[in-house]
Amino acid sequence: MSKNLTSRTEDYSKWYNELVVKADLAENSAVRGCMVIKPYGFAIWEKMQAELDRMFKETGHENAYFPLFVPKSLFEAEEKNAEGFAKECAVVTHYRLQNDPDNEGKLRVDPEAKLEEELVVRPTSEAIIWNTYKGWIQSYRDLPLLINQWANVVRWEMRTRLFLRTAEFLWQEGHTAHATKKEAIVESIQMQEVYAEFAEKFMAMPVIKGAKSESERFAGAEETFTIEALMQDGKALQAGTSHFLGQNFAKAFDVKYTSKEGKQEYVWATSWGVSTRLIGGLIMTHSDDKGLVLPPKLAPIQVAIVPIYKGEEQLEAISNKMDIIVKKLRKKGISVKFDTRDTFRPGAKFAEYELKGVPVRIAIGNRDLENGTLEIARRDTLEKQTVTQDEAVSFVENLLEEIQESLFNKAIDYRKEHTTEVSTFDEFKDVIKNKGGFVSAHWDGTEETEDKIKELTKATIRCIPMDAKEEEGKCVFTGKTSSRRVLFAKAY
Amino acid sequence: MSKNLTSRTEDYSKWYNELVVKADLAENSAVRGCMVIKPYGFAIWEKMQAELDRMFKETGHENAYFPLFVPKSLFEAEEKNAEGFAKECAVVTHYRLQNDPDNEGKLRVDPEAKLEEELVVRPTSEAIIWNTYKGWIQSYRDLPLLINQWANVVRWEMRTRLFLRTAEFLWQEGHTAHATKKEAIVESIQMQEVYAEFAEKFMAMPVIKGAKSESERFAGAEETFTIEALMQDGKALQAGTSHFLGQNFAKAFDVKYTSKEGKQEYVWATSWGVSTRLIGGLIMTHSDDKGLVLPPKLAPIQVAIVPIYKGEEQLEAISNKMDIIVKKLRKKGISVKFDTRDTFRPGAKFAEYELKGVPVRIAIGNRDLENGTLEIARRDTLEKQTVTQDEAVSFVENLLEEIQESLFNKAIDYRKEHTTEVSTFDEFKDVIKNKGGFVSAHWDGTEETEDKIKELTKATIRCIPMDAKEEEGKCVFTGKTSSRRVLFAKAY
Repeated sequence: MSKNLTSRTEDYSKWYNELVVKADLAENSAVRGCMVIKPYGFAIWEKMQAELDRMFKETGHENAYFPLFVPKSLFEAEEKNAEGFAKECAVVTHYRLQNDPDNEGKLRVDPEAKLEEELVVRPTSEAIIWNTYKGWIQSYRDLPLLINQWANVVRWEMRTRLFLRTAEFLWQEGHTAHATKKEAIVESIQMQEVYAEFAEKFMAMPVIKGAKSESERFAGAEETFTIEALMQDGKALQAGTSHFLGQNFAKAFDVKYTSKEGKQEYVWATSWGVSTRLIGGLIMTHSDDKGLVLPPKLAPIQVAIVPIYKGEEQLEAISNKMDIIVKKLRKKGISVKFDTRDTFRPGAKFAEYELKGVPVRIAIGNRDLENGTLEIARRDTLEKQTVTQDEAVSFVENLLEEIQESLFNKAIDYRKEHTTEVSTFDEFKDVIKNKGGFVSAHWDGTEETEDKIKELTKATIRCIPMDAKEEEGKCVFTGKTSSRRVLFAKAY
Repeated sequence: MSKNLTSRTEDYSKWYNELVVKADLAENSAVRGCMVIKPYGFAIWEKMQAELDRMFKETGHENAYFPLFVPKSLFEAEEKNAEGFAKECAVVTHYRLQNDPDNEGKLRVDPEAKLEEELVVRPTSEAIIWNTYKGWIQSYRDLPLLINQWANVVRWEMRTRLFLRTAEFLWQEGHTAHATKKEAIVESIQMQEVYAEFAEKFMAMPVIKGAKSESERFAGAEETFTIEALMQDGKALQAGTSHFLGQNFAKAFDVKYTSKEGKQEYVWATSWGVSTRLIGGLIMTHSDDKGLVLPPKLAPIQVAIVPIYKGEEQLEAISNKMDIIVKKLRKKGISVKFDTRDTFRPGAKFAEYELKGVPVRIAIGNRDLENGTLEIARRDTLEKQTVTQDEAVSFVENLLEEIQESLFNKAIDYRKEHTTEVSTFDEFKDVIKNKGGFVSAHWDGTEETEDKIKELTKATIRCIPMDAKEEEGKCVFTGKTSSRRVLFAKAY
């Protein structure tokens, strides 16, 4: 199977598209731009969800659920937000189909079942949620309100790609309300930290924490904090964003609270989200020409065991040995698949687990039985090693940790090599064109310059890093003075 | 708070509506018929999801995700299914809004962004899923295909009620494909069993397992298996259904497989689902005039601890004692809230936990500190007991089990008292009118009789129980011969 995969150097984009389908992660559906997430892909999403959900709860958030639809009058209430999403939203106009009189056996929209007010399928839920919060918030005692929702959203994008940009996608969206500006800013930065920790610790995907420039902010936000990752082809991926929304939504929906001092004040807001796009980032951070490479902490199957045998008797002898090891591994919380299917040969199974990125593969044959050994292969480096059956469990346990760490270190090294400080626009263009990656450059802070650089190089400001040092310099494009570097890159 | 709750005898329906809102479970939204599930209500749904998801996986199912939208041409492919849902489906016709030239600051549908083909917001996903399965199933090796999806669906119902019937609701839908008819029937009955086990073991809600009469079947099914529960007001609630779909969808979407013998055969299908409606059933099975009563296994908070103190010093002394007990309880997997809020008095806290159905409440005051005791109250019977602090942990652990069991037994007793065998139509009418509950009666098997009985009494056939005994009898309405009794009731 894997020999059919286009190589990354040949065509990175084609490699990605093929891999997503061949590894059984997702496929396109009959609905333009919408994907089907297949069981193996969904199992990765479930693992991501479980960790994120735990982290959200540990930071005091609760889950709730708000309607899929946003009445047009609510949708348009916060002007900037509405303007940002109006061009790409699916709109429900009717609530019934009827038999088509001109076309036997076919249905058509019933013209008499037109809605009085159109309903927008949520592209994001600020409007419907803040309209609800109006009823929930009266006093400072009701604050902070810390809520998250796991949901599907729809943005009618014209060019879509599996996981990276789809018309419908799955995500979580946090929506919080606070008594003070400071608290809301602290919350939005806290959630950026949570996302960064998740990306680095579980996805083994290093990220830069930063703030977006004004032109790249979420529609309706005062400040957008982002985590930016670097993919293997030198393009950046915005992997998660957390927005400080100021009082924009509170004002649009008239959400006020009575302070301790008895005054009526508008509430301060944040929202933050990550989506199934993360799976795209996961793929493009670690995988290779042979298929997926999954970090152990998010791999649906961490260890695949392939018996190599002739006849029932040998299989039984192997099973007897392995059952004990499988039990011990599972007791340690390691997910194991002992693959005794007789419809596939060992070689086909090896290829399947390689393609699907299973971190550790164990093979055991007749000679191993005699010697009390096993062959253990790691997916990331493709190295194999023979170990004794006695040491197998602790060996695998350590190996999984080592792989997790090693994937992260490799990605960090790649990013270091592909982050270039430049001081002239010629250098800038050269790096963007020939090397890729992040370009660290001074910028004069204007949208005009940002637009021109984008026009000339396709690179955008990914973020102003949170830890950027004060440094006198000159804008790489206009030569105007600048006090810190920002990160540019071409991006997904 | 609870004193404002309408009593059940006064107006059951009003009691229900008030309770859902007052106990912070859900509320109506700005979108007609759609609800907001509030954090406390959603926490119950999360507990339900976790158990059901585990049970589905234990029976070999995997989760996946399919698009929200169904193109009209796919929607209409299986005729009966389309006919059943066409009258209540939300339809997306446009993919963009624009500034309304006649109305400054307002948006309108962009007439140029009309979709070539309308998209139906899924009322159920058979069509989109079977269109996908066509690509997944070639050989007998691909079967059985056992997939579940957690999703939102939309049915444009005219009369809605929180949890029980809403335009958008959350559910899971299993969709399986099998090589043989027998296997598919076994699967659909297995999932009915899973639902029954979940309802009885976790919700403490006894259910009757049965088959639906033809007129009550799911649109497109050959057989619908159901679990039917009895609410406190004598009305039945269909709590979950599992459908044997025959080859209807396989034929509509041309899904065939090559058998071991090399023949092309149509695939056999099932689908099965439960929804947020279960929360309505949970409420109407156990709750009382003081508020919710939750079975411990699904209660978001199982134990609430209310300290009764004057001044910081007493609170500290109580906290020191209780921290140890809280830790021990949590170690046993019991969810505990130690409520030290100083913005509410103990009496208000007691009322809140009563209203919210927290199974066990512990109060501890100054005298308890001196005596080494605690007051433990159970929500279901409102009984209180003083126990020593040393025995508190094991006492609470046992009490939670006892409450779970006792709620189930109480509900079983209620159902026994409200299941009446009748042999004449006068008795039938009398029971339906004055006593309520299930009426067990002979029926001649015709839709005509079913319709007339419904017209005259509003009672419908809830199910033909799976364990119905062969018994010669005469139809309660027509006097024609019948070989077994079926269950009638008025229903939600």
